[in-house]
Amino acid sequence: MMTRRQANIGLISSAASASLANLARAQEPEAIELPLPRSQGGKPLIEALRLRRSIREYSPRSLPRQVLSDLLWAAFGINRPATGDRTAPYWRHVMVIDIYAVIADGVWIYEPKGHKLLLHPHDDIRANLVYVAHGERMGDISGEDKRLYASVDAGFIGQNVYLFCASEGLATVFRASLDYRELAKTLGLGAGQFVAFAQTVGYPA
Amino acid sequence: MMTRRQANIGLISSAASASLANLARAQEPEAIELPLPRSQGGKPLIEALRLRRSIREYSPRSLPRQVLSDLLWAAFGINRPATGDRTAPYWRHVMVIDIYAVIADGVWIYEPKGHKLLLHPHDDIRANLVYVAHGERMGDISGEDKRLYASVDAGFIGQNVYLFCASEGLATVFRASLDYRELAKTLGLGAGQFVAFAQTVGYPA
Repeated sequence: MMTRRQANIGLISSAASASLANLARAQEPEAIELPLPRSQGGKPLIEALRLRRSIREYSPRSLPRQVLSDLLWAAFGINRPATGDRTAPYWRHVMVIDIYAVIADGVWIYEPKGHKLLLHPHDDIRANLVYVAHGERMGDISGEDKRLYASVDAGFIGQNVYLFCASEGLATVFRASLDYRELAKTLGLGAGQFVAFAQTVGYPA
Repeated sequence: MMTRRQANIGLISSAASASLANLARAQEPEAIELPLPRSQGGKPLIEALRLRRSIREYSPRSLPRQVLSDLLWAAFGINRPATGDRTAPYWRHVMVIDIYAVIADGVWIYEPKGHKLLLHPHDDIRANLVYVAHGERMGDISGEDKRLYASVDAGFIGQNVYLFCASEGLATVFRASLDYRELAKTLGLGAGQFVAFAQTVGYPA
């Protein structure tokens, strides 16, 4: 895996090789292959429900790669490989929500099929998980309805994250108070895409 | 507990005693005390996430009282008695969502503080759980925002129900395709209240 710093150093090299690198990146985005998510374990569900809560104070410690892998799979990973179906339900079987993971070395988009992270060239965002909706995939419904159905899909995912964090002793809070326009701009979202909600995940302070 | 049939027979008695009964009911609505919810058990969280799915075919078998108790607690019960906080997060700490449980003997509102069901005098509704929002409690935000935040709250609850059903071998599906106006009318909702979503829960066919 290439760090952002290495990627930045790369920008100093000659324009010709930079163009080639950009071309290569356009075809095959820089990726982090996540370790396989755990397929068992965790606290018994009733205990996870008992422990579920919002926590707003975090330690600066970052999440180990395996925890990130398990977290993203729990949030919205594939739990039925034969059909590609997910751990959370989604609106009319249209893949509306992407999870953007903001970690120390950049912003990455979770790609559930390959269970990997694809580099998204932006950073400086405070939430760890940003739930971004592809409104343009939702067909001919009003903007209000797009936000509504994307919100409920984000709620399903968010509750998976809450329970995963309860089970693993992590801290999390779902975040609705965001500067949506600014965040969309920072993330460089495409036409029709919008930020539904975000969620902070980390170790408790 | 009084069944609906007994309640209906009660209506045949004299007007005077019916008025007294109505008066008593207005002060203390007819209630089903649920058995205490289980405080432990269930499948390990990762396994519940692996098993989570939507099921659309149901057996006619109804849910035993203990299962209903566990289900409603998992959905939106109190998991921190000292503060009254819940198994699912909710918008700005305002209690927006009520769960209406539609079971064989009528429509009931889940009352998490007493962990009981209060009779709601309407029936003939097909979904088992109806997530009803108190828009009037949400203050001075637009109707669109009220629906939005109620939807995400319903999503959190819905995912708890999905995982509970996955853990217990029950079938469930979250339902967005509803006749919202008709359902609101049938439920006799108050001014400002609206149906956010519904969810069917039962035994698989």
